[in-house]
Amino acid sequence: MVLPFERPEYLERIAKVKRRMDAAGIDVLLISDPCNMNYLTGYDATSYYVHQMIALALDAEEPLWIGRHMDVACARFTTFLDGKNLRGYPESYIGVPDRHPMEFVALELEERGWDHGRIGVEMDAHFFTARCYQELRTHLPDADFVDASLLVNWARIVKSPQEIAYMRQAGVIAEQAMNVAIEKIEVGVRQCDVAAAIYAATVSGTAEFGGDMPEAPWMPTGERTSAPHLTWTDEPYRSGEGTNVELSGVRHRYTAALARTIILGNPAPKLEAMVPVVIEGMNAALDRARAGVTCQEVEASWRAVASANGIEKSSRIGYSIGIGYPGPSWNERTASLQPGNTTVLEPNMTFHMIPGVWMDDWGFEVSETFRITEDGAPEVFSHVPRQVFVKG
Amino acid sequence: MVLPFERPEYLERIAKVKRRMDAAGIDVLLISDPCNMNYLTGYDATSYYVHQMIALALDAEEPLWIGRHMDVACARFTTFLDGKNLRGYPESYIGVPDRHPMEFVALELEERGWDHGRIGVEMDAHFFTARCYQELRTHLPDADFVDASLLVNWARIVKSPQEIAYMRQAGVIAEQAMNVAIEKIEVGVRQCDVAAAIYAATVSGTAEFGGDMPEAPWMPTGERTSAPHLTWTDEPYRSGEGTNVELSGVRHRYTAALARTIILGNPAPKLEAMVPVVIEGMNAALDRARAGVTCQEVEASWRAVASANGIEKSSRIGYSIGIGYPGPSWNERTASLQPGNTTVLEPNMTFHMIPGVWMDDWGFEVSETFRITEDGAPEVFSHVPRQVFVKG
Repeated sequence: MVLPFERPEYLERIAKVKRRMDAAGIDVLLISDPCNMNYLTGYDATSYYVHQMIALALDAEEPLWIGRHMDVACARFTTFLDGKNLRGYPESYIGVPDRHPMEFVALELEERGWDHGRIGVEMDAHFFTARCYQELRTHLPDADFVDASLLVNWARIVKSPQEIAYMRQAGVIAEQAMNVAIEKIEVGVRQCDVAAAIYAATVSGTAEFGGDMPEAPWMPTGERTSAPHLTWTDEPYRSGEGTNVELSGVRHRYTAALARTIILGNPAPKLEAMVPVVIEGMNAALDRARAGVTCQEVEASWRAVASANGIEKSSRIGYSIGIGYPGPSWNERTASLQPGNTTVLEPNMTFHMIPGVWMDDWGFEVSETFRITEDGAPEVFSHVPRQVFVKG
Repeated sequence: MVLPFERPEYLERIAKVKRRMDAAGIDVLLISDPCNMNYLTGYDATSYYVHQMIALALDAEEPLWIGRHMDVACARFTTFLDGKNLRGYPESYIGVPDRHPMEFVALELEERGWDHGRIGVEMDAHFFTARCYQELRTHLPDADFVDASLLVNWARIVKSPQEIAYMRQAGVIAEQAMNVAIEKIEVGVRQCDVAAAIYAATVSGTAEFGGDMPEAPWMPTGERTSAPHLTWTDEPYRSGEGTNVELSGVRHRYTAALARTIILGNPAPKLEAMVPVVIEGMNAALDRARAGVTCQEVEASWRAVASANGIEKSSRIGYSIGIGYPGPSWNERTASLQPGNTTVLEPNMTFHMIPGVWMDDWGFEVSETFRITEDGAPEVFSHVPRQVFVKG
């Protein structure tokens, strides 16, 4: 069975995380974020609708995977872990109010002597519910719990050469899907049919490599372009309306996001006036995104152009991107391109820059996913002209 | 703007939930499960990667939507709520470790006098993190918190005529997508290309109605059929291998799931022997799924056939299904078809029955989504022959 990464790469990741654990005085780290589970073990199954967890102890070489019994098979196929480090809780924990999978997790920790000392938990991670925490505290009374939110996320921020290779492939897929969107959006065509074509392009990938499970594309139309996170309807596209398409290519869970706006007919003057400013601001920020520069300096380059032209934008213009699972999590939750963010850019950090503009009843988007390079401008992963596409 | 349901239907849902709140002595209910948010307000945006919440107070007619400032626009387009009941937290809560959106939620509750009395929270709901709970407790010191997990889920279990209409449409889409899978899976075709065709069929929907954002289909092949929750690779299908396809049709978030196994070449004898037993057991359980019968009785009908033929299956054979959002949540988390479950079936409950068999290195699946009827056998929403499809 071939995994997307060799065993030594997983072990390097684990060593990196253990150094962070050590620095934070954490003996055992419990991971429930699906992206972080994937990063540390390879685990890749859409089973996170039930509770599951990775336990990484300083005194163990490999992490321990704990999940639903039937998903042990998913772990066998997708992780580098030895079979003895895969533990499944029985079905009697499923669909009942009075038993909780964290009781089983607590038993597994006890068995290994991991039930005292300092246990790190991802307090604000998706799927680590308030009840998970409560059950762990109840059933591990000798442990001290510490918040280890984002500990693994920060370990993910600089990508390895193999990770960058997958990001590049994801960028090729995103580019291909965007070209399909630009081609297919026409007056009278149903939005859902364009969404179908985007999905097909995203999932088929190229002749050399296939695409993996994508996020749903966001593609609001008309007035709805003022809202960033809407998908599609089955209404036909109408003349005069714009569509903001924000989609992603995915390769082995590595995600490249890409946004463009397509307008059918004449763009409204207010939009037409804003487009060159946004693109100029984005180009300035992209050019500034170099090793040694801080996130807030990148944002400032955008802001200088925007402010000079009367555009105020309170939301960040980008964030670190990498492994993603739906409901959307391609945002790594570490560095953001926003004022006050002093993270220093390093080579092989990857970002999605999206200075989206969402006004009262209109909006438009342009974005790029890129890599910070060793010595110059960033490497952009998709190559679609940086413009608004006006058709018809 | 047309919503999938009329305002009176949302108000009925709210009244139903308020009766349950009243019975549980809850003054204010905080909802973070995206399905439950959708149910109570219509909110339909893939924005749940940031914290957001519905607050429903016994003393208010409408719920209060609280989310990220930029997503207020999403709420304007997709909820029935009055604009004054949409509250957005500023970007200064985003991407920073020291401020949390639940502080803003607490302020909003205080402003309305909802900061004391009994506040219900969904302790085990996805996206209601341990930190969310901690922040709420810190910033609402006068409140008593009670676990209201599944309170709204249980209110969702019996569907309205309009909800059933959408489930039927979802069933038509699922049927169409499964027919595409059965047709496209061939020796030498890449798995990702079949996945692309499934997505396209799911999202395009029919000429009369489009499909909405689907879950990723599960479609493991060969040995991987022993694992229930894997997606696809870019390898070609091989002769002699089976593929378990579990997919969904989605209409306005209402989901009909459907599973079938497709085998290229001759099925292994052990599989061939088991298929008629599983289908017979499933038919028996389906026939038993009538108003007035309990969930465990339905399961017992399956179990009688299975045990008599030497099949032991520990996992439940089905669950209530309805509104779904990715990462998979079409399972409503209420009634399960499993031993010990005494929920009595009522007309317009909807279930996904999936007596999947996952063995050491093989498995197969057959499933149906159906409605409990007023006076007879269930109404099955997709019409694909209940068999294993052997090709080539």
